Amino acid sequence: MIRLNNNFNKLQAGYLFIEIARRVSDHAAANPGHKLIKLGIGDVTRPLPPAIIKAFHEGVDDQADAAGFRGYGPEQGYAFLREAIAEADFVSRGCSISADDIFVSDGAKCDTGNFQELFAGDISIAVPDPVYPVYVDTNVMAGRTGEAKDGRYDGLIYLEGTENNGFVPSPADLPEDGADLVYLCFPNNPTGTTATRDQLGEWVEWALAQRSLILFDAAYEAFVTDPELPRSIYEIPGAEKCAVEFRSFSKTAGFTGTRCAYTIVPGAIEIDGVKLRDMWNRRHSTKFNGVSYPVQKAAAAVYSVEGKKETRELINYYLGNAKIIREAMNEVSYQTWGGVNSPYVWVKTGEDSWDTFDKLLKGADVVVTPGSGFGRMGEGFIRISAFNDRENVQEAIGRIVKAMG
Amino acid sequence: MIRLNNNFNKLQAGYLFIEIARRVSDHAAANPGHKLIKLGIGDVTRPLPPAIIKAFHEGVDDQADAAGFRGYGPEQGYAFLREAIAEADFVSRGCSISADDIFVSDGAKCDTGNFQELFAGDISIAVPDPVYPVYVDTNVMAGRTGEAKDGRYDGLIYLEGTENNGFVPSPADLPEDGADLVYLCFPNNPTGTTATRDQLGEWVEWALAQRSLILFDAAYEAFVTDPELPRSIYEIPGAEKCAVEFRSFSKTAGFTGTRCAYTIVPGAIEIDGVKLRDMWNRRHSTKFNGVSYPVQKAAAAVYSVEGKKETRELINYYLGNAKIIREAMNEVSYQTWGGVNSPYVWVKTGEDSWDTFDKLLKGADVVVTPGSGFGRMGEGFIRISAFNDRENVQEAIGRIVKAMG
Repeated sequence: MIRLNNNFNKLQAGYLFIEIARRVSDHAAANPGHKLIKLGIGDVTRPLPPAIIKAFHEGVDDQADAAGFRGYGPEQGYAFLREAIAEADFVSRGCSISADDIFVSDGAKCDTGNFQELFAGDISIAVPDPVYPVYVDTNVMAGRTGEAKDGRYDGLIYLEGTENNGFVPSPADLPEDGADLVYLCFPNNPTGTTATRDQLGEWVEWALAQRSLILFDAAYEAFVTDPELPRSIYEIPGAEKCAVEFRSFSKTAGFTGTRCAYTIVPGAIEIDGVKLRDMWNRRHSTKFNGVSYPVQKAAAAVYSVEGKKETRELINYYLGNAKIIREAMNEVSYQTWGGVNSPYVWVKTGEDSWDTFDKLLKGADVVVTPGSGFGRMGEGFIRISAFNDRENVQEAIGRIVKAMG
Repeated sequence: MIRLNNNFNKLQAGYLFIEIARRVSDHAAANPGHKLIKLGIGDVTRPLPPAIIKAFHEGVDDQADAAGFRGYGPEQGYAFLREAIAEADFVSRGCSISADDIFVSDGAKCDTGNFQELFAGDISIAVPDPVYPVYVDTNVMAGRTGEAKDGRYDGLIYLEGTENNGFVPSPADLPEDGADLVYLCFPNNPTGTTATRDQLGEWVEWALAQRSLILFDAAYEAFVTDPELPRSIYEIPGAEKCAVEFRSFSKTAGFTGTRCAYTIVPGAIEIDGVKLRDMWNRRHSTKFNGVSYPVQKAAAAVYSVEGKKETRELINYYLGNAKIIREAMNEVSYQTWGGVNSPYVWVKTGEDSWDTFDKLLKGADVVVTPGSGFGRMGEGFIRISAFNDRENVQEAIGRIVKAMG
């Protein structure tokens, strides 16, 4: 008789964005004709830039042609894409990362979710709170936690983000026993905060000393415009020995519906004499068959001269939205974090997050994300996403100010 | 201190196709100028048909346009694709499967590899021998086996495919205790054999009686031309209560480099009061973000009038290759299986499989797949794939006959 993985029973009511989708769908059904504006899920709305579209079409044309046709590609990704990534994102910024360290995939959500498979079942794991739910849920499914109580899982370590630490926890926030694996995300989802070189340096120093590993989610690195802020953890010397980095074209180049991401597993990471890169390669080539060839062609165009310029404009457009949101919230006296070097604005409302969510949904036809959906420390906050068209953002902000005022 | 998932250490020398790639690469480097013909990995070589290319371009154009742009799609796949699949592949063949039961993904390899996550760690698992290695390796990684001895893992049940059973094992081949989960694959990879309605019926009857689950890999169903043979396990009444089916556009429509597949988890499967479909949905939406929108558009075109006609021509082309391979092998007195209703020809050479592999690589510059790479029962066999251009197949077969004669 077949029996189920009972760890799934421990999962909380639903993946956050599924619950939001349900409430939004109910509201829309009850209020036909209302114009709903979504500043919730963090999904891009602007079309793919012309240089990317051109390369995408060329990739499709190759698939129509006997000479150009590509079947199974390298599981790790085509060299043309991995080499472009290595040069532009790492080598040019002084990081010790090569094309061999890069694994192209169809999403950072998949990679951050799957990477835990490489580790023993009983390691100790620290996640931020507030947190991108995928880090937690995938470890719950894998049986690395106990039951949930008051929104937290037994056996997980929560690194609390607070107003005091500016939502940037440090190794000092760990319990005495430390942690074997730490998830970090900067620019942060959901708070929009960034970590300085010194702050990341503390984490790297700690991980090297403890022989712990950092899983660093840099999905929003393209939004960093301050030259003093690191865009990759590999800008910190030593990180190539203790950190895996996740990146994505989703937010950088509008690929949420096109699907392409990449993970960096430096060859310098050795654990018990095993190169972690070889292990991820084994996992990747056993359970994955590479990203669609035309999509990889499209992604490579992000690194062309036109592609760089056009994606920069895309990022600046969303950063402009973030500025509007942040300033409007500040004007009506809400304290905010993020919204600079980040597409997310984290707003302190001081009231129950889902209440604010419902108030804005019902009273303003605007979708935001309730902070408590990201963890206990998010209670009393909402996340407003800058991913929408300018006029929608302006209209939504007007409505939010009115509803919350 | 971070510690690794030691189950990876149990894995045999390397994923079969990685080992083949290594030997091929060494041979090519040592013999520049030789024209190597690959009838090994089972990768398609013909371009995507025109109707599919047209839809693919339209999908890319949508991504260039503010009004048509799609960001995150439904994790389960767009309704336009799932509804087309449900109608053409199932409803029209009398199967009780609806669009709600279909999960679009980027590959059947991923899905057959990931599906085991839904089950308890200590269930008993039966796999065919010879076997597509992904079923085995993913369970090894998940810790469901002991160490490997003589090419078999402790704790796994091997359903032996032999000349006696025509490489179609039946429930009678199971040990007395049965099995909680059984992987089946028809048309079979690697032997090319097919299962009749009665043979699948035995498995369904057994699974219903034992409350066991069948994972049915139908990646090659499009090659079935005999109307008496089932193309889906759901053509067997009751299968919708005990079987999950995996399908792919890879071989059906030349998508190995374009990436799109789908898995059917019928709503009728309940285990301990849990709908398996809901559980897979939770897993799918937590660890996956949907398939590229233009790729889904391309896949949906497989079901258009032109798409159906063009993909049928593609399949017939490869079936023509299979016929040439099979007949040539028979002419030189090798016994074969498959090559009818299947793109694979399974050839009994009676000598060590890797020796034959090396002989054909070095003596004929032809790549095949050594049968023993698929398991102990594959020793003495090779798999020849029909996926190549006609002239290459003809040339390769001439060389093989010469080298083996």
